[in-house]
Amino acid sequence: MATGSQELGQILPIDGIRIATISAGVRYQNRLDMVLFELAAGTRSAGVFTLNAFCAAPVVIARQSLKDSAGDVRYLLVNTGNANAGTGPQGMTDAQACCKAVADATGVDVRQVLPFSTGVIGERLPSERIVAAVPEALGALEVDSWLLAAKGIMTTDTRPKAVSRVIEHAGKRITITGITKGAGMIKPNMATMLAFVGTDAELDQTLLSSLLQSSVEQSFNRITVDGDTSTNDCCILSATGRSGVRVTEADKALFDAFSSALHELVLELAKLIIRDAEGARKFVTVDVRGGGNTRECLQVAYAIAESPLVKTALSASDPNWGRILAAIGRAGVENLDVSKIDIYLDDVAIVKQGGLAPSYREEQGQKVMNQEDITLHVELARGECRELVWTADLSEEYVRINASYRS
Amino acid sequence: MATGSQELGQILPIDGIRIATISAGVRYQNRLDMVLFELAAGTRSAGVFTLNAFCAAPVVIARQSLKDSAGDVRYLLVNTGNANAGTGPQGMTDAQACCKAVADATGVDVRQVLPFSTGVIGERLPSERIVAAVPEALGALEVDSWLLAAKGIMTTDTRPKAVSRVIEHAGKRITITGITKGAGMIKPNMATMLAFVGTDAELDQTLLSSLLQSSVEQSFNRITVDGDTSTNDCCILSATGRSGVRVTEADKALFDAFSSALHELVLELAKLIIRDAEGARKFVTVDVRGGGNTRECLQVAYAIAESPLVKTALSASDPNWGRILAAIGRAGVENLDVSKIDIYLDDVAIVKQGGLAPSYREEQGQKVMNQEDITLHVELARGECRELVWTADLSEEYVRINASYRS
Repeated sequence: MATGSQELGQILPIDGIRIATISAGVRYQNRLDMVLFELAAGTRSAGVFTLNAFCAAPVVIARQSLKDSAGDVRYLLVNTGNANAGTGPQGMTDAQACCKAVADATGVDVRQVLPFSTGVIGERLPSERIVAAVPEALGALEVDSWLLAAKGIMTTDTRPKAVSRVIEHAGKRITITGITKGAGMIKPNMATMLAFVGTDAELDQTLLSSLLQSSVEQSFNRITVDGDTSTNDCCILSATGRSGVRVTEADKALFDAFSSALHELVLELAKLIIRDAEGARKFVTVDVRGGGNTRECLQVAYAIAESPLVKTALSASDPNWGRILAAIGRAGVENLDVSKIDIYLDDVAIVKQGGLAPSYREEQGQKVMNQEDITLHVELARGECRELVWTADLSEEYVRINASYRS
Repeated sequence: MATGSQELGQILPIDGIRIATISAGVRYQNRLDMVLFELAAGTRSAGVFTLNAFCAAPVVIARQSLKDSAGDVRYLLVNTGNANAGTGPQGMTDAQACCKAVADATGVDVRQVLPFSTGVIGERLPSERIVAAVPEALGALEVDSWLLAAKGIMTTDTRPKAVSRVIEHAGKRITITGITKGAGMIKPNMATMLAFVGTDAELDQTLLSSLLQSSVEQSFNRITVDGDTSTNDCCILSATGRSGVRVTEADKALFDAFSSALHELVLELAKLIIRDAEGARKFVTVDVRGGGNTRECLQVAYAIAESPLVKTALSASDPNWGRILAAIGRAGVENLDVSKIDIYLDDVAIVKQGGLAPSYREEQGQKVMNQEDITLHVELARGECRELVWTADLSEEYVRINASYRS
């Protein structure tokens, strides 16, 4: 199951980025499982990575190489079917072997090749299959192949996820295109499962990095499928500069246009993950307002978004507001005055001042719950802070998928 | 589904406590849904209650009346079918009306009657049905009826839960008997769903209260079904003194015998909840050792015990240790050195020093996972602290139960 439309908007190529998507037989034969991005000379890249203490070997290497190369990255090598996580020193050797194969074949420094893996945790990466497939990948590089790459990085995803945005500026155009994957083990922590975003704008490494971090904070870091932060989360933003348009903080209008477009695009990618959440029948926006600070808004939002009882009620289209109220009550907000709390399902007031709203009729709540897209809006009446979190319902299908994923 | 045996040991009456279990028609006709405990004059009671900020009206009243009466409680009035939570001022009025009906009929002070409710949140308690049933309940009081009471407090439970313990001391006997209910919305916070424990020992109110709190902390406060703390958690311990044996800290041997027996009994009740967890096919002990302190042991234990991915793997009997490792990695323990972590399934070493144990063979892990009772044992190698948490798997049946509970 998944929610919303399968239709993606037009996905635009990025001048300076070529991509190959092939089958390397990592776990299964004849499945797209290897994607190679080639970034033109002069491209600058920034990245954010999982904060899971057990981060995978490719995450360790990608983070270090990004630093060592000061963002002067030339290739991104991605495989699915195996996360190369929990694989110890052997995992590091395997990831390095894959990067070296690309570096040797292209003449770049090995630190200019970043590795990314996603799939089953705890099994050895068959690096020899990836190494053997590098020549085929290099021969298959094409400019206009983001959508195929979006398919190539899928695991339990049922749909490819890709978004493009165009900014017109002084007679020139900047294009941004991004792809992502992820459907379960989703509660990104400073990063996401895997996301690759490219632009033909020109940006300094420092600015690129700060823009990526602020975009991710309000998008990938605001979604949860199951509260399980992956060992392999990575989000990379690469700017080729080929549009001839340089984005700096000095040109405020351009800077604002670029940063809004980037933010919208990354948020759209994050929402596509929630639309394709394992077993999802509902797309749920948890909108917590009136908090004293960000922290308490997020405590309440995640207590709701991760409550198995709220999520099963959503799955059943049951306006069971008592479960929302119980989740708010256990969220850990200090000195919470429950007699001031209001809860809305979309625009329907269901709880007023901590109790059932006098105006509420069950059929009103039922009508909202029957929708595919639902907003749970909570008013805390403690301050001016507002935070949004996106999640999906918990269905029997989620359990089926995750009880059978390895088999 | 449920795990373990349905058989309960012999459930012993407590001298000084009589119980009635009847049908008051709270939500359904002809279902046992009202239990009245009568405590003999001189009995002292202690209690612990939910820390959910949205605590139900009966919790507010029971906590206050227990304080006002200094533990000199004479009746415990319990109903199922309706939690009287999220019901605002009307909920307080309804709970008070029920207590007053018992007080008026028996001549005790209204503050000597404690109310307890469990069931659906957010609907008005039909207090008139409970009030009308009080005379029938008073006429039905019997000494030897703990097991029937255990049935009378069930909601989504599939089994009654009751335990007795006997302590022999200087030719005299102390008996302790307890019952509990709960199968979902279980992550007690300083209390449990509902538990009532009686003993014929004689104890000071202060000692009774501290013994109850320490027992609950290591039992009900160490179980989780779904991480959802209820609005109605309560655990009450009543000591009638009728055995003629006085327990004090001065008599260390007796004190130790009593407190161990109480602790064992309360822990056994807590485990019975996990055995009857909604949809449960597995009874899982999460044993975290080598932590620097209690807090970090519990962070790791709950990250595992509440991970939907670990729980679905358990449901499928899949030794998917990568999910356990990912949960440990995101638990939030500072400066965690993952290269020191070992994980065992029962006695089978599956992870050594953060990676797959060289000796591990999948069939060993599979053999343990096929069992109904499984211990996930984690070694952190950071200190001497150890904490245990008990949980169940996450099955499709859990989702089915909670998607249909209100209908």
